[in-house]
Amino acid sequence: MHLKGKKFMSEKVRRAVVLLSGGLDSATALAVARRDGFQCHALTIDYGQRHAVELSAASQVAASLGVAEHFVFRLDLRGFGGSALTSDAPVPKDRPAEAMATGIPATYVPARNTVFLSLALAKAEVLGSFDIYVGVNAVDYSGYPDCRPEFIRAFEALASLATKAGVEGKGTFKVHAPLISLTKEEIIRLGTSLGVRYELTHSCYDPADDGAACGRCDSCQIRRAGFLAAGVTDPTRYVREPRP
Amino acid sequence: MHLKGKKFMSEKVRRAVVLLSGGLDSATALAVARRDGFQCHALTIDYGQRHAVELSAASQVAASLGVAEHFVFRLDLRGFGGSALTSDAPVPKDRPAEAMATGIPATYVPARNTVFLSLALAKAEVLGSFDIYVGVNAVDYSGYPDCRPEFIRAFEALASLATKAGVEGKGTFKVHAPLISLTKEEIIRLGTSLGVRYELTHSCYDPADDGAACGRCDSCQIRRAGFLAAGVTDPTRYVREPRP
Repeated sequence: MHLKGKKFMSEKVRRAVVLLSGGLDSATALAVARRDGFQCHALTIDYGQRHAVELSAASQVAASLGVAEHFVFRLDLRGFGGSALTSDAPVPKDRPAEAMATGIPATYVPARNTVFLSLALAKAEVLGSFDIYVGVNAVDYSGYPDCRPEFIRAFEALASLATKAGVEGKGTFKVHAPLISLTKEEIIRLGTSLGVRYELTHSCYDPADDGAACGRCDSCQIRRAGFLAAGVTDPTRYVREPRP
Repeated sequence: MHLKGKKFMSEKVRRAVVLLSGGLDSATALAVARRDGFQCHALTIDYGQRHAVELSAASQVAASLGVAEHFVFRLDLRGFGGSALTSDAPVPKDRPAEAMATGIPATYVPARNTVFLSLALAKAEVLGSFDIYVGVNAVDYSGYPDCRPEFIRAFEALASLATKAGVEGKGTFKVHAPLISLTKEEIIRLGTSLGVRYELTHSCYDPADDGAACGRCDSCQIRRAGFLAAGVTDPTRYVREPRP
């Protein structure tokens, strides 16, 4: 069905911009965009995050999923401050599941997804694309406000008003968030079925110098529990055996 | 009245982020924010525009209007392409008023104001501010879609959904666009009454190496006509006498 679909649209290439962090979720979103028949333009934002190992993970994921282009955009949010991910503030560790499920953590980066989607919109408009894929997730979302469905819908509404392409009626921007209502377990099952090589992805907020995951930050804990629940072997390389 | 207002709120500093390009409009918006009693944090985006003389104009304007902070954020949109302002494509010159009033010109930068407001939102959230000022204008707006009132309202709706501060109910983001329904003539009158030193501002899309304005691009033409209509002496230094 996929191949047939591709044949029918062979006259016109449908392009999508996919925000790709190098993490598990965005890698899965990229695989979904490819399954949906899009020619994928991966956009990675290098925002001065201290887990720079994400960037090399993004390159490897992009190559493994056959993107048409992998564009790395440098955007130094460190000057703004306000987050444990872009400053020297400590990354929370070993938080129990209840703590992770409530409140907005120190790793929140102010307005991050608004900034990232805006850049994806600029890239999409230049490409003549009306489709943006983003791996946000409202279930295991660590309490980030800009990972919720109402945020995605508000951005879509903005996008068509904001752009020449939208105003001239050439199309309607769609922000695809295919993981938004999935659990981490479901995301891992979906990605595995689509051939995502999760060993190339990186989720840890506080990796060791050699890139090994800490196993203790919120992101590591959620990722590890997801592999366990999905019954998929966790390919992550940890600094040490994570706590059971 | 202004002084009285300031006295009443002396216990609590109200901060605003003001997008400051160095042009005539944003300088006026900054003066309005100051009049409204805000402590102003000017945010200038260095997006690789070829009129880099704008950046030094922004610094001078910020200093002359007594900002608390002038933050220059580097964001290289040139990699995206798609605009005469960020590429080597020619800037349109000597266009008649009718041509300027219709269509979206080559100087449109894809999704620019969406990207800029997103960065202002990030800055505001870090500062604990809920107020953003932007000098967009829907009258002499050269046909940019992201200068319209419906765009501004859509961004406000997004902002409260997008942020920790908004979600936690600490306030409601307001995007002030005090010039949106003013003509260039009215903007110049307003700014003059608020002490804006327009000789420090820069509007030209295609200045000479020494910073002199070309007098012929859309921006120069609109600016010059505005000073004429306002009955204010045009302090702009032109490359040569602009056409009558």
